[in-house]
Amino acid sequence: MTLKNQANDGQQQIDLKFMKKAIALARKSELAGEIPIAALVVDKNGRIISQSTNLRETKTTVLGHAELVALHRACKKLGSWRLNGCTLYVTLEPCFMCAGALVQARIDRVVFATHDPKAGALGSVADLSNHEKLNHRFVTQQGPLQEESSQMLKNFFKKKRTQN
Amino acid sequence: MTLKNQANDGQQQIDLKFMKKAIALARKSELAGEIPIAALVVDKNGRIISQSTNLRETKTTVLGHAELVALHRACKKLGSWRLNGCTLYVTLEPCFMCAGALVQARIDRVVFATHDPKAGALGSVADLSNHEKLNHRFVTQQGPLQEESSQMLKNFFKKKRTQN
Repeated sequence: MTLKNQANDGQQQIDLKFMKKAIALARKSELAGEIPIAALVVDKNGRIISQSTNLRETKTTVLGHAELVALHRACKKLGSWRLNGCTLYVTLEPCFMCAGALVQARIDRVVFATHDPKAGALGSVADLSNHEKLNHRFVTQQGPLQEESSQMLKNFFKKKRTQN
Repeated sequence: MTLKNQANDGQQQIDLKFMKKAIALARKSELAGEIPIAALVVDKNGRIISQSTNLRETKTTVLGHAELVALHRACKKLGSWRLNGCTLYVTLEPCFMCAGALVQARIDRVVFATHDPKAGALGSVADLSNHEKLNHRFVTQQGPLQEESSQMLKNFFKKKRTQN
């Protein structure tokens, strides 16, 4: 194994640890009747500075997506609307609103578990992390636990259809 | 004048009335050290249900754009994250984050005073109001008081450069 591979392996372990935590949070939010999605903001020292589940129904606001709430809480904690150096972990690829917020917040890196082919704005419908016209770019990648997140969402919508 | 023109003329007068109010709000926000931008949400009966200036510095959050705060307040007032039937008036063309939020909120119509050629996502850099992949579309138009809004922003940034 080369040194570079070792470093990549270390990063993968870190990504897995945070995504496991995001998935566990998302599972809890399902119990509150929310679409099971969760997000964490981690600073450059690997410290979780904020987290949130999807709260759109609970808080009755269009700003209730997990990513937006986590970004807002991170801003409050750091006392700045700029989150340079931070990484966002999220269980589902962000929509335009959330991807746009990540650009605005000058995030460094985003890791998501599974793609959102219908509305994802970090690779599926568009890619705002690397848009030629925008003034901030960031690293984005589809990370670990794709299957877990995808199944959790599928099961949620299946159950919802049966209930209706 | 045909009946259709009369109707259009009536709508133009309504748009002018609300945009004047948005411009007046934006001027106030400049005094608080914020980029002078403001937004209003108006319901289908022509009633203002929420308004906000840009509060990004004051509230220290990336979610402080005028449109997002106005949308959030409208959701709280109506008790729903869906704002079908509502119109948003804003002094500057919304960015991806805010345009994405307008899609998420199922807004009916957006009127903005002046384009944002560098970051606007309702016609300039992209047009999220009419995106083939997204599940909601809305009417969007560049409305009255373009020159007033544009000059207000130019003066703000000119003054800021002189101060620094």
